[in-house]
Amino acid sequence: MKITILIHCPDQLGIISTTTTFIQHHGGNIIYLDQHVDKAANVFFMRLESDFEPSVFDLENFKENFDEKVAQKHQMEWSLHTDEAKPKMALFVSKYNHCIYDLLSRFHAGELHVHIPFILSNHNDLAYIGAQFNVPFYHVPFTKDQKAQAEKTQLGLLEEHEIDFIVLARYMQIIGNELIDRYTNKIINIHHSFLPAFVGAKPYHAAFERGVKIIGATSHYVTKELDAGPIIEQDVTAVSHIHSVADFISKGQDLEKIVLSRAVKLHLKRKTMVYGNKTVIFS
Amino acid sequence: MKITILIHCPDQLGIISTTTTFIQHHGGNIIYLDQHVDKAANVFFMRLESDFEPSVFDLENFKENFDEKVAQKHQMEWSLHTDEAKPKMALFVSKYNHCIYDLLSRFHAGELHVHIPFILSNHNDLAYIGAQFNVPFYHVPFTKDQKAQAEKTQLGLLEEHEIDFIVLARYMQIIGNELIDRYTNKIINIHHSFLPAFVGAKPYHAAFERGVKIIGATSHYVTKELDAGPIIEQDVTAVSHIHSVADFISKGQDLEKIVLSRAVKLHLKRKTMVYGNKTVIFS
Amino acid sequence: MKITILIHCPDQLGIISTTTTFIQHHGGNIIYLDQHVDKAANVFFMRLESDFEPSVFDLENFKENFDEKVAQKHQMEWSLHTDEAKPKMALFVSKYNHCIYDLLSRFHAGELHVHIPFILSNHNDLAYIGAQFNVPFYHVPFTKDQKAQAEKTQLGLLEEHEIDFIVLARYMQIIGNELIDRYTNKIINIHHSFLPAFVGAKPYHAAFERGVKIIGATSHYVTKELDAGPIIEQDVTAVSHIHSVADFISKGQDLEKIVLSRAVKLHLKRKTMVYGNKTVIFS
Amino acid sequence: MKITILIHCPDQLGIISTTTTFIQHHGGNIIYLDQHVDKAANVFFMRLESDFEPSVFDLENFKENFDEKVAQKHQMEWSLHTDEAKPKMALFVSKYNHCIYDLLSRFHAGELHVHIPFILSNHNDLAYIGAQFNVPFYHVPFTKDQKAQAEKTQLGLLEEHEIDFIVLARYMQIIGNELIDRYTNKIINIHHSFLPAFVGAKPYHAAFERGVKIIGATSHYVTKELDAGPIIEQDVTAVSHIHSVADFISKGQDLEKIVLSRAVKLHLKRKTMVYGNKTVIFS
Repeated sequence: MKITILIHCPDQLGIISTTTTFIQHHGGNIIYLDQHVDKAANVFFMRLESDFEPSVFDLENFKENFDEKVAQKHQMEWSLHTDEAKPKMALFVSKYNHCIYDLLSRFHAGELHVHIPFILSNHNDLAYIGAQFNVPFYHVPFTKDQKAQAEKTQLGLLEEHEIDFIVLARYMQIIGNELIDRYTNKIINIHHSFLPAFVGAKPYHAAFERGVKIIGATSHYVTKELDAGPIIEQDVTAVSHIHSVADFISKGQDLEKIVLSRAVKLHLKRKTMVYGNKTVIFS
Repeated sequence: MKITILIHCPDQLGIISTTTTFIQHHGGNIIYLDQHVDKAANVFFMRLESDFEPSVFDLENFKENFDEKVAQKHQMEWSLHTDEAKPKMALFVSKYNHCIYDLLSRFHAGELHVHIPFILSNHNDLAYIGAQFNVPFYHVPFTKDQKAQAEKTQLGLLEEHEIDFIVLARYMQIIGNELIDRYTNKIINIHHSFLPAFVGAKPYHAAFERGVKIIGATSHYVTKELDAGPIIEQDVTAVSHIHSVADFISKGQDLEKIVLSRAVKLHLKRKTMVYGNKTVIFS
Repeated sequence: MKITILIHCPDQLGIISTTTTFIQHHGGNIIYLDQHVDKAANVFFMRLESDFEPSVFDLENFKENFDEKVAQKHQMEWSLHTDEAKPKMALFVSKYNHCIYDLLSRFHAGELHVHIPFILSNHNDLAYIGAQFNVPFYHVPFTKDQKAQAEKTQLGLLEEHEIDFIVLARYMQIIGNELIDRYTNKIINIHHSFLPAFVGAKPYHAAFERGVKIIGATSHYVTKELDAGPIIEQDVTAVSHIHSVADFISKGQDLEKIVLSRAVKLHLKRKTMVYGNKTVIFS
Repeated sequence: MKITILIHCPDQLGIISTTTTFIQHHGGNIIYLDQHVDKAANVFFMRLESDFEPSVFDLENFKENFDEKVAQKHQMEWSLHTDEAKPKMALFVSKYNHCIYDLLSRFHAGELHVHIPFILSNHNDLAYIGAQFNVPFYHVPFTKDQKAQAEKTQLGLLEEHEIDFIVLARYMQIIGNELIDRYTNKIINIHHSFLPAFVGAKPYHAAFERGVKIIGATSHYVTKELDAGPIIEQDVTAVSHIHSVADFISKGQDLEKIVLSRAVKLHLKRKTMVYGNKTVIFS
């Protein structure tokens, strides 16, 4: 049975030896250990993958002991994940199909260890994709007058389907504060620029206007400040004066889908930790 | 004799055929033609390299005829450059040595077809490089009280040495307006960020603070608005949570020197045209 | 009416002026001209996009005159393409779904100006994708004993559907010589390595074995020599010791689909010309 | 006092906890731990940076105890490095100046924690750089008849100056077997291609001939098989049909110097481990 433990705590002597010795004493074989110290903040981060013999391993007992003998001693915030759990991911889209097609084709190829209970959109344009991939598609309009109602509907669907995390696969609407509060560091967005350049709407137009020679895409966790959440992944591609805004958009979409999918995979593999407004992305 | 002609004019029918036919009739062989149309602005750009038999070619006569029979007809702004001219480049530096070493070692290897009449710095730290490479080094302090005097000294040196263009090889001071006016699109700066992200001072610190996963460098022509001039060249490199600000700076410097040197070479080869606040960079 | 002309011929004086003057005299407005000279081979290449007023433009007459007055004079090999033609593209696949999903989702988004008459595979695994996207799917097994028959079936289908070009979207079989002869420079393959490194089968395993720090993907036209045809497009991504062969494959697939789709788009836009065993890729 | 320990041994239970507990008991604070398991070879790798209070720390005693109580138990091959040691690096060059200028300017900027006792070249062309940077320059010709004598001279100089490692900064000659034996995994070469493509001489010409769209540079440890040693670092840049062989060379040189300098820094920071013919490069 494979277990992944994520830890962060004030930096201090002996964290690694205490933790690894505890795991060894409980019969665990450490497969991978990755740690990081944020010296400015004096915070220690660690990600541990361990293997346990399932026939003799008592998960609940392990957790209790770990908390008592390791975590409390070091003031750790920690979480433990088994490879048996299969999280539930909701997909929010608007009209562009490239990100959702990319995610669904990966899902179909077995790349993503998730359930996808539903797709939600403020438009009906991509309903056909739900049909193609046999995933329920909810059309929740989000016009000015309907926002409050739409957010209520969104929250209802998320609760009903026990959604663990949300992927905004080019969902072009602002997410409500209540939803952000309920899903802190659990809403993954793709922004179509190399953040922090070109925050907000129409970043490709702004990039074209500025005459940049490189454009980018950024996947980040959603916070209440627009396009300012902790960055998970970024990538870029070259452009030149010969490219129109339409070319920027087309080239950018190739980035967006790859960057978003990479971020989703990192999140699923528990390789992301958020601290302050930054991420630690384990390798 | 190789001649490079740069043209921009309102887009209209027949520019290419008129121009190329003219050159052919004057005995020129077109080696390379690169053109671009900015559809939004309705402006046509062209760069032409042609070869002429020097024994029969009359440059002054060609220029006169070209202006009369081609340029005026199409309302062209144009310039003509022979490969015999060797521009004079001034280097402005502060305390970092990586960009100037990169430029001087290329110069020494024959990569840059220029004269380098002098190096100017607001500090004395890099005087030894002037000595190493046998280039006059002027120390022109730029403290608050001395700015007016310093700018006068700068202008004097530029005039005395008949400088054609200026390269700010990590010169950490604001350039005065008079100097910018005299050297419009002839001052090349390297900014240590992926503009327009992180304009101004300490961009690596700002990038670290924001938690970006990619950092960059940008070379641009200097205008009166800080770090907002037409972009010539950009490049980027990946960073992660394990990198400190010092690591950002170190990785960034490898970008800065390459990006600046590329921009200088593009400028020297007459491959850059500025229109509005953007560049056309011919290939 | 938009027309694209591709030309190559021995390099000589006056080609550009003759050609552009001819187009102007026939009422064409040159939208884009891109040319290249291979100095070693003394060959001139040009791609011209022109706009003609459809009400007065006589295509057949233009072609006849162009051949007589321009092409023959300069010994040009040339082709002319209107934007009205919509080529027929056949997709060949095996078991991997990432490349075909990428192409079909772009097709669905209107990015590819083609007909897709059928998908052909030596396995039945991806038949569901044909169903999802409503494209006929032919299962043509390709085991040792069936090769001759399979190639006959392939040729029959290509002929019946009047296919213009073939995309091998990770079709893991050797293409027969007869098919290559009929579709010279019209079969686009994606090879899962940075060619010419790791020709042949299992390139990711070979790359892992060699301990490279970067892997790549290469799209090329198919010739009779395996993985040795003219390269259209390449891209790369970083790997390290922490990545397994499975990681190489997963990261590589993200390259493969983007590189293949870029190559298909370049081919469709008539931006590729083959000369010798190399390509000129217009911008 | 900062200590870096490099370990590799058969993979087994308890290595991390044993090692980290040992360090903690000796008063060490672990600053960074990076580990890797090569599952195919069943080998465990670890790099540990620890901080010790110099006033109470007994290095020799620590080493003895570590060997006895940790290393022998786990059949470790290990090495220990203090930050006080300053290795001696010899530079071998031929006629190109870009790599040596890059290394020397970094040295001058304090980036490289080394001594540089001498530069050695088979030509006299770069003697001026030795003079500029005040580093002894030995001209050791390497023509056919002089090889045996030249290798003897090389070995003599390396011994006399107690050289720790050698950097081939575009030294275009084959290194003799005796020298390779004495400096196993201590000779760093830069090869001007994306290995394993284009092994041997004139790789840019070969890349041009093949029509690749990306070229690269590779830094590796020298082994007896030409250009086949463990790869430390690689990087690439885009090229196209418009680039001549001279352009490939010029663009490639920008890669070569950066890739070589990165490899030298990784070696100096003890971030490289060689196993089989591959490297583990710690982050």
